[in-house]
Amino acid sequence: MHVGFVGTGNMGLPMAKNLVKAGHQLMVYDRRIEATAPLEEMGATRAPDLPSLGRAVRVTLLSLPDAPVVEAVVLGSTASEGLVGGARPGDVIFDLSTVGPESTRRLAERAGQRGVRLIDAPVSGSVSGAEAGTLAVMIGAEAEFARQFEPVFRAIGASIFHLGEVGKGNILKLLNNYVALSNQAALCEAMALADRLGIPRQTVGEVIARSSGASFILERKLEALVARDYRPGFFVDLAFKDLGLGLELARQAGAAAAVGEEAWRLYGRAREAGLGKLDSSGVLGLLEPPRPPVATP
Amino acid sequence: MHVGFVGTGNMGLPMAKNLVKAGHQLMVYDRRIEATAPLEEMGATRAPDLPSLGRAVRVTLLSLPDAPVVEAVVLGSTASEGLVGGARPGDVIFDLSTVGPESTRRLAERAGQRGVRLIDAPVSGSVSGAEAGTLAVMIGAEAEFARQFEPVFRAIGASIFHLGEVGKGNILKLLNNYVALSNQAALCEAMALADRLGIPRQTVGEVIARSSGASFILERKLEALVARDYRPGFFVDLAFKDLGLGLELARQAGAAAAVGEEAWRLYGRAREAGLGKLDSSGVLGLLEPPRPPVATP
Repeated sequence: MHVGFVGTGNMGLPMAKNLVKAGHQLMVYDRRIEATAPLEEMGATRAPDLPSLGRAVRVTLLSLPDAPVVEAVVLGSTASEGLVGGARPGDVIFDLSTVGPESTRRLAERAGQRGVRLIDAPVSGSVSGAEAGTLAVMIGAEAEFARQFEPVFRAIGASIFHLGEVGKGNILKLLNNYVALSNQAALCEAMALADRLGIPRQTVGEVIARSSGASFILERKLEALVARDYRPGFFVDLAFKDLGLGLELARQAGAAAAVGEEAWRLYGRAREAGLGKLDSSGVLGLLEPPRPPVATP
Repeated sequence: MHVGFVGTGNMGLPMAKNLVKAGHQLMVYDRRIEATAPLEEMGATRAPDLPSLGRAVRVTLLSLPDAPVVEAVVLGSTASEGLVGGARPGDVIFDLSTVGPESTRRLAERAGQRGVRLIDAPVSGSVSGAEAGTLAVMIGAEAEFARQFEPVFRAIGASIFHLGEVGKGNILKLLNNYVALSNQAALCEAMALADRLGIPRQTVGEVIARSSGASFILERKLEALVARDYRPGFFVDLAFKDLGLGLELARQAGAAAAVGEEAWRLYGRAREAGLGKLDSSGVLGLLEPPRPPVATP
């Protein structure tokens, strides 16, 4: 399939690579020229700008950090035109980014006025899942419609969910991230406690992985937590944003969210401490006991 | 092996059954006579009292709710004698219960003065793991010593950890339960939010199980959460106790524990609401929106 792809960052690049590997003809765009270079080497074409990409393809995937960026890419901004500047009626945009369901619905309506169908299709499974092509994809559309793009989604994901209507993909994604990021915060608190009790993180991880505390987060992050390697991955900044969106949903719905709120505070503190561009597991860097200075001879 | 077993409740009974099935000769005791009846039918012997059990066997397992009960069973109380009343020097007691590491160390010291070696060996994996014989067992002793009881532990567990010294088993167990019970609290918050947004719990569970929020808790509890079946399982009361012990460790060590503390508050509120003897996932019963009354014709 001839597919457009906008946003080739930590998540977007490995997904786009898997699309090329699966035989799709890719036209890519990222405002940073160097971000698309690895894909051009694999045979993808770089679009000179967003309207050109909109003109060239009938279906485009977006992988972007937040709602304002998604809106600017789709509709354009004062500085430049967006995808719809080149699109034709009937074109489809799948937004793989995680944004609030209200933003998605509003943007879908505005794109719809230009004849373009925008559908949320956020993904989960972290960078390792994006590399392995085993992501979960939560599509805010009915199965009958989305199935025509099955070869595209099969190239990036192992579990494809059709959730029936626009915005539902992002609701499920926010519910998932609420759970995942709370799990991670609790795990980091337990690890920082273990540090203080003199129990190696590797031992803690091995025991919990075989016990009732086992989780995807533990399985995927243990090696990095043991090595104190907090390189991203999934930024602290994004964890703070996603949990914040989940808390907003909870507030609007009148649901209790005390545990998630404490996790959100923790990512917020890490952000304020300048750790926003670390992996979200880097909150452990904030919690762990200070390490004794290395003696110099 | 000829083995004693004290405490045949929700966790103890399936473990004791697996010991009998594996060919061990079991002598059992529980203060409730009816609690040991299923084991007697399988060929186990019921001890008339704790000192008799202590006299008859050289190794005994305990599965009890908390530290005061463990102490009364081992050392006796004003009302009755304990296991050590009949034990011989060199006898071994493995305590499968979850108690604080300090309680374990103190009790091990007092039992040691009577020549009896008490070792913490808490288990994890919930009732379903106890039934399947796939528990994790966290043994507070060195491998060289504990390995002689391998056939006993293999009958109840799939993962046997040797943690080197008394109390360490319980530290690992409390770290695990800190994580598991926090995971569960966050999951219940997300489910109660989904309820309010009109998303079926089954859909939420299926999506998260394939995404970064996947966990042992979700896998084991989803069916019950969907059915609103909050029968135990593992009591709210015990979740509150275990998280409380974890928070005490954190306080003593000077570790941050804000996420776990909110989870603990949630189990505490469920307890105060009279839900203490529900399964710990029953906190969802506290969080879920009130259901519309069923119309009567």
